Amino acid sequence: MNILPIFIVALLASFSHVNAGDFCVGDVSLPAGPAGYSCKSVAKVTVNDFVYCGLAAAGNTSNLIKAAVTPAFAAQFPGLNGLGISLARLDIAVEGVVPMHTHPAASEVLLVVQGTICAGFISSANKVYFKELNKGDIMIFPQGLLHFQINSGKGKAIAFVSFSSADPGLQILDFALFANDLPSSIVEKATFLDDAQVKKLKDQKDDDKN
Amino acid sequence: MNILPIFIVALLASFSHVNAGDFCVGDVSLPAGPAGYSCKSVAKVTVNDFVYCGLAAAGNTSNLIKAAVTPAFAAQFPGLNGLGISLARLDIAVEGVVPMHTHPAASEVLLVVQGTICAGFISSANKVYFKELNKGDIMIFPQGLLHFQINSGKGKAIAFVSFSSADPGLQILDFALFANDLPSSIVEKATFLDDAQVKKLKDQKDDDKN
Amino acid sequence: MNILPIFIVALLASFSHVNAGDFCVGDVSLPAGPAGYSCKSVAKVTVNDFVYCGLAAAGNTSNLIKAAVTPAFAAQFPGLNGLGISLARLDIAVEGVVPMHTHPAASEVLLVVQGTICAGFISSANKVYFKELNKGDIMIFPQGLLHFQINSGKGKAIAFVSFSSADPGLQILDFALFANDLPSSIVEKATFLDDAQVKKLKDQKDDDKN
Amino acid sequence: MNILPIFIVALLASFSHVNAGDFCVGDVSLPAGPAGYSCKSVAKVTVNDFVYCGLAAAGNTSNLIKAAVTPAFAAQFPGLNGLGISLARLDIAVEGVVPMHTHPAASEVLLVVQGTICAGFISSANKVYFKELNKGDIMIFPQGLLHFQINSGKGKAIAFVSFSSADPGLQILDFALFANDLPSSIVEKATFLDDAQVKKLKDQKDDDKN
Amino acid sequence: MNILPIFIVALLASFSHVNAGDFCVGDVSLPAGPAGYSCKSVAKVTVNDFVYCGLAAAGNTSNLIKAAVTPAFAAQFPGLNGLGISLARLDIAVEGVVPMHTHPAASEVLLVVQGTICAGFISSANKVYFKELNKGDIMIFPQGLLHFQINSGKGKAIAFVSFSSADPGLQILDFALFANDLPSSIVEKATFLDDAQVKKLKDQKDDDKN
Amino acid sequence: MNILPIFIVALLASFSHVNAGDFCVGDVSLPAGPAGYSCKSVAKVTVNDFVYCGLAAAGNTSNLIKAAVTPAFAAQFPGLNGLGISLARLDIAVEGVVPMHTHPAASEVLLVVQGTICAGFISSANKVYFKELNKGDIMIFPQGLLHFQINSGKGKAIAFVSFSSADPGLQILDFALFANDLPSSIVEKATFLDDAQVKKLKDQKDDDKN
Repeated sequence: MNILPIFIVALLASFSHVNAGDFCVGDVSLPAGPAGYSCKSVAKVTVNDFVYCGLAAAGNTSNLIKAAVTPAFAAQFPGLNGLGISLARLDIAVEGVVPMHTHPAASEVLLVVQGTICAGFISSANKVYFKELNKGDIMIFPQGLLHFQINSGKGKAIAFVSFSSADPGLQILDFALFANDLPSSIVEKATFLDDAQVKKLKDQKDDDKN
Repeated sequence: MNILPIFIVALLASFSHVNAGDFCVGDVSLPAGPAGYSCKSVAKVTVNDFVYCGLAAAGNTSNLIKAAVTPAFAAQFPGLNGLGISLARLDIAVEGVVPMHTHPAASEVLLVVQGTICAGFISSANKVYFKELNKGDIMIFPQGLLHFQINSGKGKAIAFVSFSSADPGLQILDFALFANDLPSSIVEKATFLDDAQVKKLKDQKDDDKN
Repeated sequence: MNILPIFIVALLASFSHVNAGDFCVGDVSLPAGPAGYSCKSVAKVTVNDFVYCGLAAAGNTSNLIKAAVTPAFAAQFPGLNGLGISLARLDIAVEGVVPMHTHPAASEVLLVVQGTICAGFISSANKVYFKELNKGDIMIFPQGLLHFQINSGKGKAIAFVSFSSADPGLQILDFALFANDLPSSIVEKATFLDDAQVKKLKDQKDDDKN
Repeated sequence: MNILPIFIVALLASFSHVNAGDFCVGDVSLPAGPAGYSCKSVAKVTVNDFVYCGLAAAGNTSNLIKAAVTPAFAAQFPGLNGLGISLARLDIAVEGVVPMHTHPAASEVLLVVQGTICAGFISSANKVYFKELNKGDIMIFPQGLLHFQINSGKGKAIAFVSFSSADPGLQILDFALFANDLPSSIVEKATFLDDAQVKKLKDQKDDDKN
Repeated sequence: MNILPIFIVALLASFSHVNAGDFCVGDVSLPAGPAGYSCKSVAKVTVNDFVYCGLAAAGNTSNLIKAAVTPAFAAQFPGLNGLGISLARLDIAVEGVVPMHTHPAASEVLLVVQGTICAGFISSANKVYFKELNKGDIMIFPQGLLHFQINSGKGKAIAFVSFSSADPGLQILDFALFANDLPSSIVEKATFLDDAQVKKLKDQKDDDKN
Repeated sequence: MNILPIFIVALLASFSHVNAGDFCVGDVSLPAGPAGYSCKSVAKVTVNDFVYCGLAAAGNTSNLIKAAVTPAFAAQFPGLNGLGISLARLDIAVEGVVPMHTHPAASEVLLVVQGTICAGFISSANKVYFKELNKGDIMIFPQGLLHFQINSGKGKAIAFVSFSSADPGLQILDFALFANDLPSSIVEKATFLDDAQVKKLKDQKDDDKN
């Protein structure tokens, strides 16, 4: 009765070195691989590696789009590394919008916790699915498809989004087209947008950079 | 200028039959497979297949555990089928608890939206990770590990949990051990619990069934 | 020496019913699942299920974009079902372009077999990667990211693209924004494009439909 | 105390239709998909779907190779469907051999339970790894690589092999080359084997068929 | 005839550096990632990396549970790293038991090689599946579900279990609840076990630690 | 209007360290893992990491098989690392052949760009699928199955093959059997080939090595 079972000793011992087992808290100081970050030593992992408080405060919506996205992806919350899930917080002020964007590597589920949001996505078959969502409603945005969220209510809107990846990625259409060094001539050729329109948006973005 | 590009016609046509493409809204009337439900015809899919309102209302906490779990898994929300993600709502009254349980097929991230919750999990290496969480905090529960959530505050607590599977499963320890036809002798042999303790909890469960 | 080994009889027999084994030629008449189409009975599968001739002929480039994309995805070539790979042919006439687009569910590798193509993509970190490609060059477009191909040479360009999915999907930016029933007001709100620009492109698309 | 917790009712109910959850016992009468067979209704599943007795008896080794392979793959043991694992039994008489073969879709681990076996595999880098194994030894054969097992002892040998797929497939080199309608001219062209050798082995196989 | 084909030279050369190719023998001295350990250099890999003899000897069953589990997981047998499969040996003396436990990351198949074992598991739908198994019988335990094995015969029982992961993990219920620093008050709150019962088992475990 | 939106700053910043995001260009100087090479720092990645010119030139077919395979796998083209796709070029002179071989870790799609090729594969159920392919035809070779390509035309043949893995592996039957240190006695035992045939081919290979 009084000896600890041999196999427990063996097992607990054997598992004390198994980083890939239950979890793999990311160590961003080590090189990453296709499946995510390298694992922090289990010996150094504490409960704080599994808790994140960065979504508790509202994001700053004093900006062009009157909205803020606060990510809790593996880069911000390394405990998610390798677990295939992540979250983000959306704050959208009155008349605010999370512009047309995609997540290259994840599907998304949005949960409205305050206000009213008109959200939608466009499928590969070029069909549009959009609806006004109220508090407590959830909506799906399948992986890699263009989607948007607009505050369609009279007050501030707050939502939390979950992703089917610890590192979903984010590509905001306007920034992809107008906020980098992609030549205007290529943008125009590849989007059929008028030169004036492209220049206007690029300048606006340049202004943003000032 | 006035003819629709040939390749668009071809592509849109070719994609109109591709169920496995962007999404696969579950048709629960058809046989499922290892990867989930069969897909509902894209032609019959509407935005309502991607929106679910079942988490807007609080669950009924007038029960033994003073808590309620309201799932939005593929079985309740077929739009999630095949997307590798799902949600659930937790309502925990004062002194309420979501008892020790596991999700066999998914990791979980909990988001506290009201109140205070003491939550934790136990690893394969038999280490305990638990902490008190406040509004806005999120916590990870890696796949398949025993975990619990207890209302540790003075008022009602509400949380939303996200899973890395559309069908995470749920195994509640007490119900697995005491709320089915597993013989008491086997429960005792496999858990080292006393006969009296097992009988007591089984009776309690039997009462529950009345 | 003259009896067929028992185990071969057993094995060949046992495998004659295993559709999920080596391959799963899609049967588009049956319901699909998240992993693809249901499998055609192995007994009915012939070599012709594994050979496709639809990419041999050039696509028609007499259209708005002076380009044609001819897909050989699971929908056109069901032998690819479940194998995680597919192909397509690109024909781009002089001054032609395959406009800005994404594949929600696959990475792509482009192979130039004739002419010169200027191709590029934009990353989640909003960095642009583009280059002029000549015959025999191959270029990667990671999953879900906006990318484009422009004929930058003096003659016709031909390329073949491979995808890391049997059903990569395709979302062409202009068609997603302007060739469906997404209200102009939402397009403008979610893209910051001017009303005139949106109206112009939508009309153009409407014309295309005539 | 006397009411069954509401959420349990809800959960148990919601899960009673979730075939894709814990398991997906194959229903071979329904069409399969890329991920395996369709699931048998959970209501019809019993413990017998999870227990298989077909490996208890020795296979018949009175054959050309003095060996027998008895599979417990998803086709024989549908409870394995979708679980990513399967087993088989190897009986090898004195001087018997399991000839050079591959499993296209799975890695293998062999466990010797009786006798002595000389086993080996050849890597993609064309390096040979082989060793004599005794009772209790286990050996790995990575996915898709040519490997063999030879009884190198004085008595009967028995082994059990596990696979990292419910449907690993099996391609026996001799039978692939000589026991089907692949023309001898192609065999010779593609293997550099002499015509006489090919003819001899094909005849032998033909004999086997009588 | 006398020159080694150029492309073989090229290929063999190109493959000599491809660690991720056929296999990835774990190097436990390097940081792991979500997919497992880093790969040992192929140049240093020998057949001994693919052979393990640690399961040949019986485990010591002179303990509380009269049973021993001897694992051959990636931590003990690094050749399994990344291959999605592992094994373990079960020795269960008369009246011995492998107590209620789960494997968070893998499904299991048990093979009885000696004696008689009563084994079972409980599903997410709270249904119990258990049966007495004899020599040669195999039984499935789907991923993440509570299961147990009891020696129900008159002599020693031996079994080998295979897992659908190189690192299946193991969570033994009694040790998760009673053999760590999880406060008794939380154990009681989360399991409805009586204080006396919890104290008794915790003490017993403490004794075990002496 | 003139301030860059806060959330973009936050997002672009947060993503600048996310190696696992859109892509993971392999750094062959770092240890690899089961999922592929470690990722090169995104800061050092340029468009040249995504472009490869090594397939532009014909391979040297002045060899035993009158054919050349030029791979663009992750080892040659690290930009493919983790993306689940790769390419190779086949040059087959008149009377040339790519001998019977397998790819242990990937399915293949062949595209004929010049000439005529007779290609085929053999299934696990030992059925042969082969056909003559002309320019523009594509053919599937499911994962891990023996297959071959023979120039069946009057002129040179060129094909490009795509794989469903960045590191498909390649096992050429003749080289696996005859171009390494696998003892002739084992080859004969495991293949039923005559001693003379084995010796002849081994010698031939030895010659090749001179």
